[in-house]
Amino acid sequence: MKSQFFDLVAPEEARQRLLAHITPLTETDTLPAYQAMGRVLAHAMRSPQVLPTFRRSTVDGFAVRAQDTHGASDSLPAYLAMAGEVPMGVISEQVLQQAQAITVHTGGMIPDGADAVVMIEDTQQVGDDEIEVRRTVAAGENVINVGEDINEGDLILPAGHRLREHDIGGLLAVGLTEVEVVARPRVAIFSSGDEVIPPQQEPLPGQVRDINSYTLAALVARMGGQAVLGGILPDDYEAIRARVSAAFKDGANMIVLSAGSSVSVRDNTARVLDALGDPGVLVHGIATRPGKPTILGMAGRVPLIGLPGNPISAFVQFMMIGVPALSALQGAAPRPAEVLRARLTTNVPSMAGREDYVPAKLLPGEDIPRAEPIFFKSNLIFKLVEADALVKIPLDKAGLQADALVEVRLL
Amino acid sequence: MKSQFFDLVAPEEARQRLLAHITPLTETDTLPAYQAMGRVLAHAMRSPQVLPTFRRSTVDGFAVRAQDTHGASDSLPAYLAMAGEVPMGVISEQVLQQAQAITVHTGGMIPDGADAVVMIEDTQQVGDDEIEVRRTVAAGENVINVGEDINEGDLILPAGHRLREHDIGGLLAVGLTEVEVVARPRVAIFSSGDEVIPPQQEPLPGQVRDINSYTLAALVARMGGQAVLGGILPDDYEAIRARVSAAFKDGANMIVLSAGSSVSVRDNTARVLDALGDPGVLVHGIATRPGKPTILGMAGRVPLIGLPGNPISAFVQFMMIGVPALSALQGAAPRPAEVLRARLTTNVPSMAGREDYVPAKLLPGEDIPRAEPIFFKSNLIFKLVEADALVKIPLDKAGLQADALVEVRLL
Repeated sequence: MKSQFFDLVAPEEARQRLLAHITPLTETDTLPAYQAMGRVLAHAMRSPQVLPTFRRSTVDGFAVRAQDTHGASDSLPAYLAMAGEVPMGVISEQVLQQAQAITVHTGGMIPDGADAVVMIEDTQQVGDDEIEVRRTVAAGENVINVGEDINEGDLILPAGHRLREHDIGGLLAVGLTEVEVVARPRVAIFSSGDEVIPPQQEPLPGQVRDINSYTLAALVARMGGQAVLGGILPDDYEAIRARVSAAFKDGANMIVLSAGSSVSVRDNTARVLDALGDPGVLVHGIATRPGKPTILGMAGRVPLIGLPGNPISAFVQFMMIGVPALSALQGAAPRPAEVLRARLTTNVPSMAGREDYVPAKLLPGEDIPRAEPIFFKSNLIFKLVEADALVKIPLDKAGLQADALVEVRLL
Repeated sequence: MKSQFFDLVAPEEARQRLLAHITPLTETDTLPAYQAMGRVLAHAMRSPQVLPTFRRSTVDGFAVRAQDTHGASDSLPAYLAMAGEVPMGVISEQVLQQAQAITVHTGGMIPDGADAVVMIEDTQQVGDDEIEVRRTVAAGENVINVGEDINEGDLILPAGHRLREHDIGGLLAVGLTEVEVVARPRVAIFSSGDEVIPPQQEPLPGQVRDINSYTLAALVARMGGQAVLGGILPDDYEAIRARVSAAFKDGANMIVLSAGSSVSVRDNTARVLDALGDPGVLVHGIATRPGKPTILGMAGRVPLIGLPGNPISAFVQFMMIGVPALSALQGAAPRPAEVLRARLTTNVPSMAGREDYVPAKLLPGEDIPRAEPIFFKSNLIFKLVEADALVKIPLDKAGLQADALVEVRLL
């Protein structure tokens, strides 16, 4: 009985084995841009127009001919005749003549004939009809030219980009009020194990509440997926097979099973996932903690993830593998800086050949934040609740020293 | 005309002046815990029960009396009689006797009489009824005791905590399936300026599309607020006053006005906000770029934010002030590590006495990420679309050198 149970695969290789099989969903949704936050663009977006469409002032001041301010200074101002004002939001019909100044507002249109704007702070009104200009401006100064923001046909955002607030601003600025985004992956989530009961029930001795279904569903939702809770399955091969097959036939785009903790349930998980379709199970056991007994596979285009029942293992492994798999299903690149850096407050033991993820509190640091590891036995969910982040202890390290610079993922 | 227009206030002081007046909303919502992601707890949550409720094994193996394994090793195993199995999810009625071993699964109940679990890897079956134990286990080894995760009455999460996925797992684990959270602040958002048109319209020369309403609404939604779009207001005091007053009377919890760019509109904004209620305008102009003409005030318990019309200024200032104000309305502490660190790729000029926020791309770095500033004239929304983050150039610095360690906020 001294076997290792599984052929353990390094975490990065395990993840890549799964990701290599995933192709983005071809279904899309067409949405108003302002409702598409966090969704992933199905196609590259190009600008249908130039922006700005008219020359705009970047300041409050006076549109002038730059040459009329040549040599102007506090001691030797230039004098220009005030020739009206460009109101906001309408076309300026007026053409600026030599030695004239026309009042313009920030964002307002520069009248024809003008090629620069003098800031109001650099002028002084003298009488009703004249200003002193106390500074020389160069041609083009304080002016945004037509097309300086974007030109017709320019790439705004590539396919696979996950939309952020300011991206939506950019799209709306050029009238792209609708976007086509990749459909939300439908993720069927099951819990299994004879000891697992719904959270609203009062557990009898030996029973525990199902929390994995809900924490995994919340991670799925955050990543732009749509969780479909399949409920709690008994520790029985046929029962599990029937329910998981039904979800597969119903068109689930990913199937996640957090198995109860007994060996028999884990074996059932592997058998069910393997039987669902080709290529079947790709990884059975990962050199990582928590989450060693994780099972990865594919049935056709559908990624299959079998997680340990331990809530911390299930949560951590879904962050490490389920989240990138969801991005891959959406054809999305990961966001920059999802991985941060921190300094360990204390030594952390590990084992060479195993990649650990240690829950930690993040504390303010002198330059970068400090990560204070939380040590505990497995299966204590409230230790994870105390944590802000997961610290990575790399595969090739037998632990890390205090002050080591570590990768952390925010929880 | 050489005045500075505004009494400029340092950004931190401006923010604190506003935050000092904000009191959390007293309205709450009661929700299923699994639908409360990102919401803020109205009350501290304490555990109604002990967890685990029964002694659990952390491994697959055999429940034993630790003293029966005393001195056991590969060369001198202890021999124990196999005395059945504890099935998952039911009470074990059996009591372990001296020199016996009972099979237990990870997470399963430890039978009475046992005080430790031997991992299956450290055993060898010999015949049908006996095992060899090849390692000494200590009392309590591989056992989670009753209450080791949490005890009845223990604090789970404090009031003001913004719920994350794993928090919801913790709540459900002890049967807290409903939570009372602070109501979503209702944020009335207006754009104003005669040049501003709805994004679905085709602009005439001199007109620009309203994007601020939508980017600000998306930020509000991300922070757990509820945006109520008030539309585009003309550059007219009475029109602005009427619409903003109506929103105030309708019970908006925050009012945000991104004013068109002309001085007259900014003045209208200040007058309207000041007239809405006491204490009125608190800050008129901030020593920051972008966003100098920002106006902050309070009418009773309602924060008022007047933003420049320039979409980048409006967006950046809403991140800096609107987002913390929304957290304050929810009684929520900011999340740790919302501010990250990066190294500048290049020098960035600034002006002592002014706090700048420079859009930047984040690139992978040797230890921490590198921030590549994006330089551009104001009012170019697509330069912001290129950015992943905002780099802070502190108030007391006249610029920063390449390689300087800077605070960045992810966009």
